[in-house]
Amino acid sequence: MTVHRLTLGDVLGEHRRGRPLGTAVVDGDVRLTYPELDERVDRLAGALAADGVGPGDRVLWLGQNSFRVLELLLAAGRLGAIFCPANWRQTADELAHVLTDLTPSVVVWEESEAVEKARGQVPLDARWIGSGDEYEAYLAASPPPAGLPSAEIAADSPVLALYTAAFDGRPNAALLSHSALIAHSMALLHMRQMEDGFTFLACGPLFHVGTMMFTLATFQLGGKLVFTPAYEPTEVCRLIDTEKCTQAFLFGPMIDGLVEANKDGAHDLSSLHFVSHSPEWDAMITVDDSPWCASKMGGYGQTEVGGMLTFLGLGMGGAGYAGRPSPLVHVRILDASGEEVPPGEVGEICARGQSIFSGYWNRRELNEAKSAGGWHHTGDLGRREPDGTLTFIGPRLRMIKSANENIYPAEVERALKTHPSIADAAVIGVPDDRFGQSPKAIVVLKEGASATSDEVIEHVRNEIASYKKPRDVVFADTIPKRGYTPDYDTLDATYGGGAYPGT
Amino acid sequence: MTVHRLTLGDVLGEHRRGRPLGTAVVDGDVRLTYPELDERVDRLAGALAADGVGPGDRVLWLGQNSFRVLELLLAAGRLGAIFCPANWRQTADELAHVLTDLTPSVVVWEESEAVEKARGQVPLDARWIGSGDEYEAYLAASPPPAGLPSAEIAADSPVLALYTAAFDGRPNAALLSHSALIAHSMALLHMRQMEDGFTFLACGPLFHVGTMMFTLATFQLGGKLVFTPAYEPTEVCRLIDTEKCTQAFLFGPMIDGLVEANKDGAHDLSSLHFVSHSPEWDAMITVDDSPWCASKMGGYGQTEVGGMLTFLGLGMGGAGYAGRPSPLVHVRILDASGEEVPPGEVGEICARGQSIFSGYWNRRELNEAKSAGGWHHTGDLGRREPDGTLTFIGPRLRMIKSANENIYPAEVERALKTHPSIADAAVIGVPDDRFGQSPKAIVVLKEGASATSDEVIEHVRNEIASYKKPRDVVFADTIPKRGYTPDYDTLDATYGGGAYPGT
Repeated sequence: MTVHRLTLGDVLGEHRRGRPLGTAVVDGDVRLTYPELDERVDRLAGALAADGVGPGDRVLWLGQNSFRVLELLLAAGRLGAIFCPANWRQTADELAHVLTDLTPSVVVWEESEAVEKARGQVPLDARWIGSGDEYEAYLAASPPPAGLPSAEIAADSPVLALYTAAFDGRPNAALLSHSALIAHSMALLHMRQMEDGFTFLACGPLFHVGTMMFTLATFQLGGKLVFTPAYEPTEVCRLIDTEKCTQAFLFGPMIDGLVEANKDGAHDLSSLHFVSHSPEWDAMITVDDSPWCASKMGGYGQTEVGGMLTFLGLGMGGAGYAGRPSPLVHVRILDASGEEVPPGEVGEICARGQSIFSGYWNRRELNEAKSAGGWHHTGDLGRREPDGTLTFIGPRLRMIKSANENIYPAEVERALKTHPSIADAAVIGVPDDRFGQSPKAIVVLKEGASATSDEVIEHVRNEIASYKKPRDVVFADTIPKRGYTPDYDTLDATYGGGAYPGT
Repeated sequence: MTVHRLTLGDVLGEHRRGRPLGTAVVDGDVRLTYPELDERVDRLAGALAADGVGPGDRVLWLGQNSFRVLELLLAAGRLGAIFCPANWRQTADELAHVLTDLTPSVVVWEESEAVEKARGQVPLDARWIGSGDEYEAYLAASPPPAGLPSAEIAADSPVLALYTAAFDGRPNAALLSHSALIAHSMALLHMRQMEDGFTFLACGPLFHVGTMMFTLATFQLGGKLVFTPAYEPTEVCRLIDTEKCTQAFLFGPMIDGLVEANKDGAHDLSSLHFVSHSPEWDAMITVDDSPWCASKMGGYGQTEVGGMLTFLGLGMGGAGYAGRPSPLVHVRILDASGEEVPPGEVGEICARGQSIFSGYWNRRELNEAKSAGGWHHTGDLGRREPDGTLTFIGPRLRMIKSANENIYPAEVERALKTHPSIADAAVIGVPDDRFGQSPKAIVVLKEGASATSDEVIEHVRNEIASYKKPRDVVFADTIPKRGYTPDYDTLDATYGGGAYPGT
């Protein structure tokens, strides 16, 4: 029923009325109130509509951070279209993949050689708009539109596409609906205890869900959003000070950079309520005591769930360091056949709820697999602890089947790495006449440490179910990696892996 | 899509896994963990299903507070049925109205003469179950059901019916869906900054949205719910102390009762985080600083929006004492033709969003009027202040039309009551040959105070738009009331009212 509808456009419509004097965005010299933002979004939506952008069409942003990312998202939302802010620093080949995959109707882009090259590679019937003056001219040329079809936009229609790393093959664009983004924002508002007047500094990349999710939660609350093109320590300190930012997108090394940049105390960072990090940092800021920040920040998440699926703050002091699910989702740990596994057993983290994505753009088969049985399959392994909290084990990259039992390499690797002599480890499945496959461990020892195969196997047997222990252990100097995870294809080729189920 | 579904049953399913050791409910000698609650709800749903209760059917509770109210709500939710906890202390005639209107399939009832009498008055094909031992026997006789059709319940199906006072005629049962209740709970979790371990004492009536909304928010978070049959000061103090309650349903006189009951300091109430009230109270409890409690508790709400529509905590320091809308709704101030009025003008508070109700049970025409144009019409008057915050003016009971201008009596009455000599006031419309109607004020002066008609009219002219001022003022000893509002029918009959638009 219309009376229940809530889209991003509705949220903006409320803020223009409820916060007529409130600053919505700050970006360099640009400062917009909520009514000004609403007016610009309306004009932009009118311009995009005049260019033929309608329901389901894609609008692509290729550039650094800008308040225009928010404007484009909201304008696309008003038309039922999908907005994608993509990583501008990718290679021309990677950018060409995005153009080919997404087939946008409009591309707003910041000058770059790679983008120019990609544009030349991919024949595309798209309007290209420069992200600076040209964007402003585009917007200025559009009269304030009267009566855009905003009332017809369904809250469950996708509005944001974020490319996310695929462990095999090319990245996929996760589609998030108005409803999913709003639900996720509510969970963040709750966990971070965001209050009236909240100001967020978007100093991480907006094509990444980490920065985007706090941008959207701040918008949901009618707070102030401060944009900066990219993380630059001195500028970040200056912005926190002058705009009195309550939060920013920061983690470890970025925080160390701020401590270094502000060691002379030139900037007052006390408005920032953030997680404790180092004595120097804690002295500069206000240490936040919300469930989001208390003890350790975080939980478990991925782009496909809008950001966070679980929050450590909902399982404080619990055994599982991923905490418990957001109040707007629920989680099951399922085996490969879709059955729930008992507490203590490892299976795939599957979820259902309001903030789950609507599938990937243009990936019909993959989407069917990801939502099998009406559960979103995260592709990650986890476990319910006896107290009900969740532990994230690692990505479910592949599965070994031995004597009809499922064995996930990530779980065995985790057990191996708790051995005091082991620096790194990977597990593959090798063909086995009797059992189909059997697990084989490739182990890197710590410098100067020693261990025998039998000791390693016995260690794993004491950590997890016996049938999961490696039958064979190979000692190596290094584990080949693909990103953060073992390169299983290379490992299989080197150490004789094969006979995986389904192959 | 199933992957996005979230019903109350799904929330319970998560808690049984995520909080296997967590206490869900406490009620007298009864203590249930979440898995125990889930098991009992399953049995109860099985028993109700065996009695023919299915989608859309009603289950009625007539009794004092009990954990069984929560069980029945959750069991009805699992079947797609609607649960209604009604006021047990109503007269037999009022109870008969509920029975006739709701036509429940199952009534769970606590012994009372009025209920017995009403049961005799209304022929009903319903199963009647005593709320104590008989309920337990009913539940015990049901085997644990295998495979209830919970997966088929739509999140937007109504699950809770709460009777709410109608200003004219009999009460109506407001229907709230799973989605609406979950959305409202999220808003409360956010505003009240409810954290892991939250414990709520339901010491107000569960047939009222005020107690119910905190019960449901606590359930949403997987907190502990403590039930007590009714407010009894010494018992409430004991429960806060022994169960370490974080919050309870309390307001002014109830708080004074606790201060009196605990003046010897026999009970430690420091676990309670609540709004500041009096020096004695503040010394007993922990004064809460969440946006829900800071300065003054509240906002604007009604049963039809699940409880709260706006929160003062989202408009702290603003001009409008109703604050701003919950992040999951948006508000428009509309005139009688459905057009938005400008800031500063009074109109009807209308809303759209996730926590809005699904209409009243069995009131087709009224429902169409309440949701005209896709906006929920609250029936209350409000105003946007220049800073965007909202002010609640009063119920829109009727409207006067004078020279084609709309005049709401509540707004004029509000202006009248700011006069230092006026104790009470009501405004009616009297037939007027030239203007159709003209406003007439009935005024009660404070003891010993005096004022002339001209002074009163001039006062109103200075407060609000001139066309709204009364043309005539009558001084009276008292204003006849219906509940808290003027009895306009009697006033019209006494003072010559009539010619209202639409009559």
